[in-house]
Amino acid sequence: MKDKEVILLDCEPSMFGMRLRVALAEKAVEYEYREEDLNSKSALLLQTNPVHKKIPVLIHNGKAVCESLVALEYIDETWKGNPPLMPSDPYQRAHARFWADYIDKQIHGSGRRLWLLKGKELEGAKAEFMGHLKLFEEELGDKLYFAGESSLGFLDVALIPFYSWFYAYEKCSGMRIEDECPKLIAWAKRCMEKESVAKSLGDPLRVYEYCLKLRKKYGVE
Amino acid sequence: MKDKEVILLDCEPSMFGMRLRVALAEKAVEYEYREEDLNSKSALLLQTNPVHKKIPVLIHNGKAVCESLVALEYIDETWKGNPPLMPSDPYQRAHARFWADYIDKQIHGSGRRLWLLKGKELEGAKAEFMGHLKLFEEELGDKLYFAGESSLGFLDVALIPFYSWFYAYEKCSGMRIEDECPKLIAWAKRCMEKESVAKSLGDPLRVYEYCLKLRKKYGVE
Repeated sequence: MKDKEVILLDCEPSMFGMRLRVALAEKAVEYEYREEDLNSKSALLLQTNPVHKKIPVLIHNGKAVCESLVALEYIDETWKGNPPLMPSDPYQRAHARFWADYIDKQIHGSGRRLWLLKGKELEGAKAEFMGHLKLFEEELGDKLYFAGESSLGFLDVALIPFYSWFYAYEKCSGMRIEDECPKLIAWAKRCMEKESVAKSLGDPLRVYEYCLKLRKKYGVE
Repeated sequence: MKDKEVILLDCEPSMFGMRLRVALAEKAVEYEYREEDLNSKSALLLQTNPVHKKIPVLIHNGKAVCESLVALEYIDETWKGNPPLMPSDPYQRAHARFWADYIDKQIHGSGRRLWLLKGKELEGAKAEFMGHLKLFEEELGDKLYFAGESSLGFLDVALIPFYSWFYAYEKCSGMRIEDECPKLIAWAKRCMEKESVAKSLGDPLRVYEYCLKLRKKYGVE
């Protein structure tokens, strides 16, 4: 079977889906993109991810890999060519995995609260979100990428999709991320200069529109 | 530096700590075990895990690795000798990581609710917990271990520590896990025949006592 037999079940504004789009682009893997309607999930999605019933699902030669960080490692281990996403040193690998896990445990939920909450609760959510981001600002330091000086690594790919949500986060919460995390924003812009990222991330305006629909759905405003 | 320079900051009843104890025992790595008092965390714990401030922390030659699944992979990649915890095939690796992630996302929280809740809420929690375990019962199928027929793998090591909590779960909730998941219990007993597991898991009675203290602390009963 050819590598062409790669299918990605995804949904445009999903930061988790974007991770896989970036990684597949970095590895120059051709794939079939299938947009899912999350209000009416396809039989293939339900069949390939019966446990979580969520996108993204990466299907490679008929086998499904679910959960975006797991799929990122799968992509890196399957298409080993240039460039590797994971460093070779076990400690550096652990470091990248630790921070990627932190994104899923903290950044994602904290970001959601920026468009779900209002008033005093929103103020708390803003402080919390910024606290999380500042850890990444520190972690990045003066490096060009989290992985080093030249190419994207596991943590870069895991985090950069959230940049496409920053506009929505800012519009909904009234905060300005660059004021407190200028290095992180510079990093994001640098990532956007890579074609793999530029072509894979959702358009911030469309993400914002999607976000407004979610707010309506959840009765915010 | 010698491999002797391995320190584990841990707490006896922690299922996350037990994972590392089992993995280090499987790899025959000598280490210094330091029991933490979670009500008065050591300066070393706060310094080595400033982000989460949680045990377990694995310190190897002065470098700290936090989050138990991340540390499991670190152990496997650092002490590559017999036996490897992770399979070599990328798809099988993804599969093991997917289910280990599921344990952290679902089994742990669901298990907590068995000793935190009462009445109708407890009944819901029991059904939910059993639903999660049945997925593992199916996933195990007729294999001796999740990793195959002979030795423990990543998923075996990630899951087996919860067995030391089953007694507490059953006593607090009134359910009997073996009735619905006999294969899983047979698997756990098989794991307990391995010295690496038997010497690393907390004693179920002591775990239960610890659990009763937690119930008191949280005002249950």
